[in-house]
Amino acid sequence: MRTKITELLNIKYPVIQGGMAWVAEAYLAAAVTNAGGLGLIAGGSAPADTIRREIRKARELAGNKPFGVNIMLMSPFAEDLAELVVEEKVPVVTTGAGSPGVYMERWKTAGIKVIPVVPAVALAKRMERLGADALIAEGCEAGGHIGELTTMALVPQVADSVDIPVIAAGGIADGRGLAASLMLGAHGVQCGTVFLTANECIIHETYKEMVLKAKDSGTMVTGRKSGHPIRSLKSSFTRRYAELEASGEMTQEELDALGSGALRKAATEGDRENGSFMAGQIAGMISECRPVNEILEGMINEAQVLLN
Amino acid sequence: MRTKITELLNIKYPVIQGGMAWVAEAYLAAAVTNAGGLGLIAGGSAPADTIRREIRKARELAGNKPFGVNIMLMSPFAEDLAELVVEEKVPVVTTGAGSPGVYMERWKTAGIKVIPVVPAVALAKRMERLGADALIAEGCEAGGHIGELTTMALVPQVADSVDIPVIAAGGIADGRGLAASLMLGAHGVQCGTVFLTANECIIHETYKEMVLKAKDSGTMVTGRKSGHPIRSLKSSFTRRYAELEASGEMTQEELDALGSGALRKAATEGDRENGSFMAGQIAGMISECRPVNEILEGMINEAQVLLN
Repeated sequence: MRTKITELLNIKYPVIQGGMAWVAEAYLAAAVTNAGGLGLIAGGSAPADTIRREIRKARELAGNKPFGVNIMLMSPFAEDLAELVVEEKVPVVTTGAGSPGVYMERWKTAGIKVIPVVPAVALAKRMERLGADALIAEGCEAGGHIGELTTMALVPQVADSVDIPVIAAGGIADGRGLAASLMLGAHGVQCGTVFLTANECIIHETYKEMVLKAKDSGTMVTGRKSGHPIRSLKSSFTRRYAELEASGEMTQEELDALGSGALRKAATEGDRENGSFMAGQIAGMISECRPVNEILEGMINEAQVLLN
Repeated sequence: MRTKITELLNIKYPVIQGGMAWVAEAYLAAAVTNAGGLGLIAGGSAPADTIRREIRKARELAGNKPFGVNIMLMSPFAEDLAELVVEEKVPVVTTGAGSPGVYMERWKTAGIKVIPVVPAVALAKRMERLGADALIAEGCEAGGHIGELTTMALVPQVADSVDIPVIAAGGIADGRGLAASLMLGAHGVQCGTVFLTANECIIHETYKEMVLKAKDSGTMVTGRKSGHPIRSLKSSFTRRYAELEASGEMTQEELDALGSGALRKAATEGDRENGSFMAGQIAGMISECRPVNEILEGMINEAQVLLN
């Protein structure tokens, strides 16, 4: 399955693994890369030394095959990570939570392929003007930090507004989603939620169980009031947070403090009471843990049958 | 383009026009039916005599070709309309805003094909058990009253959970959306927003202009607090409503009174100050008014090229 994205990134399948903080580390990224997709290491809010170790570990596991690093631009270490990917000669960088404008020249000079995540057409156009090599158009059915537009509405509108290749994200976990994304004008897909349940994913078993048990309406959005909405699996934490948010009893600072560390508690401790188990609406479709290569090959085979 | 939906409904193209209150009357419905899709007359909150006139007018304009009536189950006239469609031998009924359980036996006995709109898997399964002939799985990118799930996430999950045919709705306005929906497991699509801009659509010119001018992020959702979210084009009305809703200054009854009649003011008067111009996120993709047959044939031709 050759597309503009497989050619741009020199990968076998047009499937990218999402750069999920506390989830996307070397072992998962290398598994996706080794299976023919593009694995990603999430910078999250981690310091450069931690991510340097992950990059080197991924390289050990995946040899010369391409992988990427996701840089969350609100991270206190964003500048350090921006330099790190140049030093470590990381071939692909995806960015979230803002504009990577200040780093673009440095990265392009180093030959890094830069792929920002965009939630709307205006930012897509701006990223193309800045020199982005491709875009990830992510719909609000995705897990974690989300925008307003859905994948179905966003992808064709972004594809119409830029000339660089578009990667669809949000609500994609099988060959149907991949085939649909290609019909919408995308040249590849980014998947997050389905890789949460990969055998190679290191998150706590409780997190995986919660994804497997989730129904279609098993996620909810908190943080709309603050302007930073986040989609997670419904849990006692998200319900409590939503109630406090609606009641107006807490300041935004107090709410932020409550949310701080909640993803870590979910991913590393499986803490059902205090963890924020981020996942997308497609969690309802996922019913078993599988090795990364089965997830990827199942997706590709199903898409090819549908497209033929 | 033959699918389970074209066979079930005896139509040429697997495209249904949404049953939009104050929009979907005889002239638009007949135009869609005559062009090879399935036109729908919206019952809205209108009394039976009004809808009887529309049904007879549509029949005059479309001869024996099939069309449908959408019954909004919260309408004060729902029971009258339920009887009317039997008397008038309407071949297809779609339902919204609840479960048509109490009418199902009467309609099935009369040979009416019943197609409920569903926002989630649980209602989809219940509707299949009740005897529905097909389902419209509508994502939250649609205009008007919406659920939580997006089209991309909802359609495959509904398709996996029922054996009856599924029609995708929400975010679909061209051949890309139709082709993507078929990949996701749907057997047809329902479109609303694109038909707002059809030449044959009788809404106020201001409403059409607002759809044409809308960008991808040109819609917003109000009513989330009340549990009855509605998607409309951003306007002074929706902004004012959202502020009042967030402020907590008004009771829900007062908010409902403010919203009451707002769609009529948009559709019939083009009232920018007090109208609620309901439309989906795909409005940003629509840039010209066209005749219904061009919209439909453009969609079919584009989908066929993509699928071959």
